[in-house]
Amino acid sequence: MRATVVGGSGYIGGELVRLLLGHPHVELVTVTSDRYAGRPLRAAHPNLRGRTALSFIPATEAGESDVVFLAVPHGAAAKEIDHWSTRAPRIVDLSADFRLRDDALRERHYPGAAPDPGWLAKFRTGIPELNRENLRGATHISVAGCMANAAILALHPLAAAGLVAGTVLVDARTGSSGGGRTPDEGSHHPERSGVLRMAKPHGHRHIAEITQACGLDVHMSVTAVPSVRGVQVVSHVTLAKPLSERDLWAVYRDAYRDEPFVRLVRERSALHRMPEPKLLSGTNFCDIGLALTPGTEHLVVVSAIDNLVKGGAGNAVQCLNIATGWDETTGLEFTGLHPL
Amino acid sequence: MRATVVGGSGYIGGELVRLLLGHPHVELVTVTSDRYAGRPLRAAHPNLRGRTALSFIPATEAGESDVVFLAVPHGAAAKEIDHWSTRAPRIVDLSADFRLRDDALRERHYPGAAPDPGWLAKFRTGIPELNRENLRGATHISVAGCMANAAILALHPLAAAGLVAGTVLVDARTGSSGGGRTPDEGSHHPERSGVLRMAKPHGHRHIAEITQACGLDVHMSVTAVPSVRGVQVVSHVTLAKPLSERDLWAVYRDAYRDEPFVRLVRERSALHRMPEPKLLSGTNFCDIGLALTPGTEHLVVVSAIDNLVKGGAGNAVQCLNIATGWDETTGLEFTGLHPL
Amino acid sequence: MRATVVGGSGYIGGELVRLLLGHPHVELVTVTSDRYAGRPLRAAHPNLRGRTALSFIPATEAGESDVVFLAVPHGAAAKEIDHWSTRAPRIVDLSADFRLRDDALRERHYPGAAPDPGWLAKFRTGIPELNRENLRGATHISVAGCMANAAILALHPLAAAGLVAGTVLVDARTGSSGGGRTPDEGSHHPERSGVLRMAKPHGHRHIAEITQACGLDVHMSVTAVPSVRGVQVVSHVTLAKPLSERDLWAVYRDAYRDEPFVRLVRERSALHRMPEPKLLSGTNFCDIGLALTPGTEHLVVVSAIDNLVKGGAGNAVQCLNIATGWDETTGLEFTGLHPL
Amino acid sequence: MRATVVGGSGYIGGELVRLLLGHPHVELVTVTSDRYAGRPLRAAHPNLRGRTALSFIPATEAGESDVVFLAVPHGAAAKEIDHWSTRAPRIVDLSADFRLRDDALRERHYPGAAPDPGWLAKFRTGIPELNRENLRGATHISVAGCMANAAILALHPLAAAGLVAGTVLVDARTGSSGGGRTPDEGSHHPERSGVLRMAKPHGHRHIAEITQACGLDVHMSVTAVPSVRGVQVVSHVTLAKPLSERDLWAVYRDAYRDEPFVRLVRERSALHRMPEPKLLSGTNFCDIGLALTPGTEHLVVVSAIDNLVKGGAGNAVQCLNIATGWDETTGLEFTGLHPL
Repeated sequence: MRATVVGGSGYIGGELVRLLLGHPHVELVTVTSDRYAGRPLRAAHPNLRGRTALSFIPATEAGESDVVFLAVPHGAAAKEIDHWSTRAPRIVDLSADFRLRDDALRERHYPGAAPDPGWLAKFRTGIPELNRENLRGATHISVAGCMANAAILALHPLAAAGLVAGTVLVDARTGSSGGGRTPDEGSHHPERSGVLRMAKPHGHRHIAEITQACGLDVHMSVTAVPSVRGVQVVSHVTLAKPLSERDLWAVYRDAYRDEPFVRLVRERSALHRMPEPKLLSGTNFCDIGLALTPGTEHLVVVSAIDNLVKGGAGNAVQCLNIATGWDETTGLEFTGLHPL
Repeated sequence: MRATVVGGSGYIGGELVRLLLGHPHVELVTVTSDRYAGRPLRAAHPNLRGRTALSFIPATEAGESDVVFLAVPHGAAAKEIDHWSTRAPRIVDLSADFRLRDDALRERHYPGAAPDPGWLAKFRTGIPELNRENLRGATHISVAGCMANAAILALHPLAAAGLVAGTVLVDARTGSSGGGRTPDEGSHHPERSGVLRMAKPHGHRHIAEITQACGLDVHMSVTAVPSVRGVQVVSHVTLAKPLSERDLWAVYRDAYRDEPFVRLVRERSALHRMPEPKLLSGTNFCDIGLALTPGTEHLVVVSAIDNLVKGGAGNAVQCLNIATGWDETTGLEFTGLHPL
Repeated sequence: MRATVVGGSGYIGGELVRLLLGHPHVELVTVTSDRYAGRPLRAAHPNLRGRTALSFIPATEAGESDVVFLAVPHGAAAKEIDHWSTRAPRIVDLSADFRLRDDALRERHYPGAAPDPGWLAKFRTGIPELNRENLRGATHISVAGCMANAAILALHPLAAAGLVAGTVLVDARTGSSGGGRTPDEGSHHPERSGVLRMAKPHGHRHIAEITQACGLDVHMSVTAVPSVRGVQVVSHVTLAKPLSERDLWAVYRDAYRDEPFVRLVRERSALHRMPEPKLLSGTNFCDIGLALTPGTEHLVVVSAIDNLVKGGAGNAVQCLNIATGWDETTGLEFTGLHPL
Repeated sequence: MRATVVGGSGYIGGELVRLLLGHPHVELVTVTSDRYAGRPLRAAHPNLRGRTALSFIPATEAGESDVVFLAVPHGAAAKEIDHWSTRAPRIVDLSADFRLRDDALRERHYPGAAPDPGWLAKFRTGIPELNRENLRGATHISVAGCMANAAILALHPLAAAGLVAGTVLVDARTGSSGGGRTPDEGSHHPERSGVLRMAKPHGHRHIAEITQACGLDVHMSVTAVPSVRGVQVVSHVTLAKPLSERDLWAVYRDAYRDEPFVRLVRERSALHRMPEPKLLSGTNFCDIGLALTPGTEHLVVVSAIDNLVKGGAGNAVQCLNIATGWDETTGLEFTGLHPL
């Protein structure tokens, strides 16, 4: 299958390129970037040195292929969808444009970004663990947001079982790559290095996706942490009824038993007792751990992903694998590094 | 005033030494360490190179002075208090031994560590912002724990005004120096570097102090973050009644208007909108910021300190300044560095 | 081919396990660790969670297999070689024990560690770029040291062409994983974080290997830098005769044109002008760059590797691939991550 | 003495402000910044929160004071010197404009930046350790560059004693704050974090200052390292004659015996055997250590400073203290933090 990556010089675009170059059923034929047009891929992604002879081309010069991945800013996908549909029969969109089904919800969190309803209806939600069957044979896929995905995978089993009472508190911690490739005052190394910057104490847009997927009332805080890659989400849940930790593990095991990329973390050692994003760099795993405060209905669920992989490019490839009927883990076998 | 630091080779001990060497009314005469006995202070604290000619001596050889600072492990202070009381008329204890007034509360969090009740009754709680008057003239002071102090300063104004409903969720993030000087598997650099290690999802011992100081029901999670110094505490509070952010700022301004070391952080710029521990390295400040989720009673309070200064040695010096009647900020004037 | 990793709980051992689990022609059957015996591999290597059901066994219980990798401390391999030879016909040793041919050289740098001469004669040097032909069919392979390997690959083309005058200055910078898994005062996170610790201003043992491989007189300084993985070696060479940068690139191109894991870095942009170890994490690449001080014979050669991969486990697998006749890159395809 | 800081929103400017606010003989009256004009100082320097009520004003609105510190880009000081001379009788310039005495040397390293010769003649070189007497009573002072200063203090004692043979190799490692406040692609956190980026393998402009101060032939390489603050310079010297380490220490002790801000580091423990910039954050110290390769004339000299303090603002204040006859250490007493 011949693939095009649009917006290939960004960080999500770079991960798509990395994964697709290693995918046995995909031939990466086109990578667009207006800024890097004419330069080799390694100019933006130095890890690809010696790995490919491709150069970036301007988006306007992209020809036809079998699948187009849109790694473009929010708003651009909705605007350009007509065009890209003439270039490939399959579209995998990594922006937020086709994620939200409910116009009011979208308008609250992404004001003024309503996509064409006809196109919206064609897109299927790219969260394999929740709607794998719906993804089989899909031609238009909208991949989940990074922190949203980590929160959804942490909360969905509880929500689906009706075990959540009241508002869930979602405390997300994110590395600097989540902010994308463009430098600004906040990403300047002397300012960003070593910070615990609570940039968003409430009201983050990813709430919309979590609400849509889980039907929960959510408060979300986001703290920028010193790492480059990785998202960790700590969800504080009030259980709707008293349950033991053992009961809760059973709920998660039932939900994720056959999932190739969800790992339940249940160690006694404090060192790796809970999911650690550092370990997941480059992998498509979502690790999930639990802790119930003894004698209460207060449950802490910790989830972690690589924001560029399971939180973007890897999830997109997983969705494509499902849509085409390939083995779901194809091209996503990287185990992760330790120590790092 | 001639001062002795017991346990002077640890990180809190080192900060005490640094601060006392710069204190115009204190002469540091003795620093004990069994492990480093006979070696110059710079062997444990290389920042003191050229700053002092003192060497460590064994604890058993410490003579008399005017004030003894106990920077020893929990349990040791209660055990050695009789001895150190023969060495100085004033004791400032930085361990947990004399912090908790309620035996049941202490037993739950520090099992088997009950101090002699007579000694316990002599100690006054070393939190200037809460009990300054009580500290004037004090001869025995028990300094608050690091994360506890940051949480208490964040929550006390609300608690005192009866504005808190239900359980408060205290999410603490701590650098590696909080774990002390002794290497272990978890502090090994390849394992500790870059982590978001949720070592304690619930049940941290500092809950006891927060409960005692604020009378609140508290859930506390602790995450080890990549920095060396600094604690950030994010407290999620449900307000007992609807209030505006303006109302809430008024509560905090009333509480801390004249405090030399509490700074209210109220910026519009996302870059420094909330307290950032990195900026506080070496200082005795506690920075506090607020954010009310619009249309709700959900309040986020963020506080930050240097765990070794306002969370230990600096707070101890501030308490001594109050007890002796010196200007409260003496020896604690360092402004902090930016960038760092 | 059935493989055993001895000393599998260390960092090099962990990388061997990771690579061998992904190697299509190898079945990892035994991983030994006395300390972790009985525990699953993920107890030492949390990245392997869900990847294997193997547990560590004591070294004494290891049975037979087709190849044994010795990832043991220096000295242990020489001591245990008789034993392990009864367990497999092929030995790949990652310690220093069989690296040095010259007894005097070894004695100077590793005093008292002389291996049995019979065994020493059997071992071939595990540096594919220098002695690939010699490795074909090899049954006993001694893999190069991490910093040595980076320095050798940087200097050998010049040395082989007789282009080096006088002493070469090798300035090595190393991450914390190079010090291994055992915590000590120097690896304690608060002490190790953010350092530029010149632990070894001269006399590092890796000089011996560089001298042996390149026949050069070498001064070597080693600085511990803040990263976990990665080695960067900056070699300062005085050329034996005036040459242009273009001439020098030709020398390196000739030497490494067909090498699958040596990449020559020749960018104009300052951002990635020279080899950067961060980009190589998890990969088997050695990146090499040059800069000639204009109008002089002073050449700077910069090389970088992942110390655990090309500086250890990956190089070992590459050697095995050559020895067995498999495609040389098998199991070593990982491209590396950016950003990281 | 009333002081003005021009270019006060930059990192060097921020350090000047921090130090001058704590200086007992200086009243900071004006801080200019065109970009931050009208905003409080804490907008650029959040560490100053609560420390001062000053706001930035545009440079054009600066009135008269007793001393003007120019913390402006190279070139700007030479252009604006006429203007600022009408604003204060004393000028302390932290740019490169008045550092170099030799026109050819300057033209090679700072092409087109020749200052007016009359002004140039008025300026005295701001390196107290080399020309303290010349600074007494000085009205115009040109402060040394950061890496240059660390290299000069490391090399001058040897150079002055005629102990250097041939070219000195100066290997400088610098944190990100040295690049100033303006974000660019290279300072973007995901790109800058964790790097060992050899941006300048040769030809750095600071060579000019080292040559001028020491009369040495110098090769200089500069590597950007992961820290924010701090410069470490490793100088490799070939001695002009055989000397013992003891002899060499005597040379340095003679040179720096009475220097308040030069510390000779001579420890046996590998942990702090050599100068470590991390320990110097916020201080005005230059730490210097030595190691002679046994049996050779190869000497390694390691020096470290905080690039913003001894490499800029602190050195400027030290020079002013000398010029005015105040105690030389006034306002520069900060000891530094450990751990950090």
